[in-house]
Amino acid sequence: MSVLSPDDLEDALRAIGAERYHNRHPFHRALHEGRLDRGQVQAWALNRFYYQSRIPAKDATLIARLPTAELRRAWRSRLIDHDGDAPGTGGVARWLRLASGVGLDPDYVESLDGLLPGTRFAVDAYVHFVAGRSILEAIASSLTELFSPTIIAERVSGMLAHYDFVDRDTLAYFTPRLEQAPKDSAFALDYVRAHATTEETQAAVLAALRFKCGVLWSMLDALDYAYVSPGHVPPGAFVPAG
Amino acid sequence: MSVLSPDDLEDALRAIGAERYHNRHPFHRALHEGRLDRGQVQAWALNRFYYQSRIPAKDATLIARLPTAELRRAWRSRLIDHDGDAPGTGGVARWLRLASGVGLDPDYVESLDGLLPGTRFAVDAYVHFVAGRSILEAIASSLTELFSPTIIAERVSGMLAHYDFVDRDTLAYFTPRLEQAPKDSAFALDYVRAHATTEETQAAVLAALRFKCGVLWSMLDALDYAYVSPGHVPPGAFVPAG
Repeated sequence: MSVLSPDDLEDALRAIGAERYHNRHPFHRALHEGRLDRGQVQAWALNRFYYQSRIPAKDATLIARLPTAELRRAWRSRLIDHDGDAPGTGGVARWLRLASGVGLDPDYVESLDGLLPGTRFAVDAYVHFVAGRSILEAIASSLTELFSPTIIAERVSGMLAHYDFVDRDTLAYFTPRLEQAPKDSAFALDYVRAHATTEETQAAVLAALRFKCGVLWSMLDALDYAYVSPGHVPPGAFVPAG
Repeated sequence: MSVLSPDDLEDALRAIGAERYHNRHPFHRALHEGRLDRGQVQAWALNRFYYQSRIPAKDATLIARLPTAELRRAWRSRLIDHDGDAPGTGGVARWLRLASGVGLDPDYVESLDGLLPGTRFAVDAYVHFVAGRSILEAIASSLTELFSPTIIAERVSGMLAHYDFVDRDTLAYFTPRLEQAPKDSAFALDYVRAHATTEETQAAVLAALRFKCGVLWSMLDALDYAYVSPGHVPPGAFVPAG
């Protein structure tokens, strides 16, 4: 591989998304196409909550490592988006309302008692990656947000059309994400285009995005294996009622 | 929960193994009962190699944190068991021979190119656990070895009986483990019995063993989901030939 132009690097990043982003996962397709029952949607909401709840830890870890006030300020907006400005605001609180909306006890969700070990390991791997890799790799690992507006649109329309236990209020988490994710991914993409200018750093940012796609994909692997027929719920994890 | 006697604590630890150790996992049963094909056994050997290869890192991480020469010397025997005294000796090298024995290119195995992300995240979670938790919890997390002699005996006899591509030489990894694991687990169990003497530390060691059972269980979840019918190999992971 030789050094890519910024446009070619962006194309290579987008090609990774086209191959590996979790919109191609069978569990995602089943969720959007209405093939899951309420207990399976609950399992998804419960496990995905852990991802949402660790995103501020991931972002704070990166902010702590950023060298300038300008970069820290730019990244700080993500903390505000996720943690809000007051109790009950922000993305994590909205996800908890999604979980309540599909019938889960929010205290149980927050306790993490029913979490799949595979979810925990994948999410923790993301936080550790951002703590331990170069700042460029840490920023590149956020670039799955380039691909999220499409999946959010599919998810919201599919879930509203197919599940009578889901309404617009339940899915309110996703509305601000349609503006936040493109703003965030544009900043991260500009940074990566400007700073990944050698063969070595370009290979590293491509690997970082592959890694992050693996995190999201592996979370759906764990859900599909545990909760979709025949279902292999591991010892101690959430068991849907009925 | 009130404070348990050392014997009752040991019973509680053994009860966790009875419920959560991975000898109860469907992939393990399929492996031992001859229901896998050669490609599926290869996938198991390739992914399990990553676990084997990180055990010395896990042990060195703990040795670095142990406060006395006596404890460090005791734990050092594990490093010697796994890394050997010369090239080609030790548990990691023997696992690579197992992988070669079932038909894999050892360079490919060592490259980790075909590793399942779920395997990587679970194994890395174990190393991070040992780095970040109390020494007592780190030692308790090794106690899955209490249960390994049984699974090893089942594995060796089952694989020799059912797979014509497996012979005793291929499975030579397991022979010394039948003596090493009981010696190691006896040391760790004595330490835990002696040092987990409060409600809080007893709850912590029980949680540490549950965590570790989750690591091993989740590795088999990932293998079963990816490689057993219908098979959902994630993008980029090992695809068996044929």
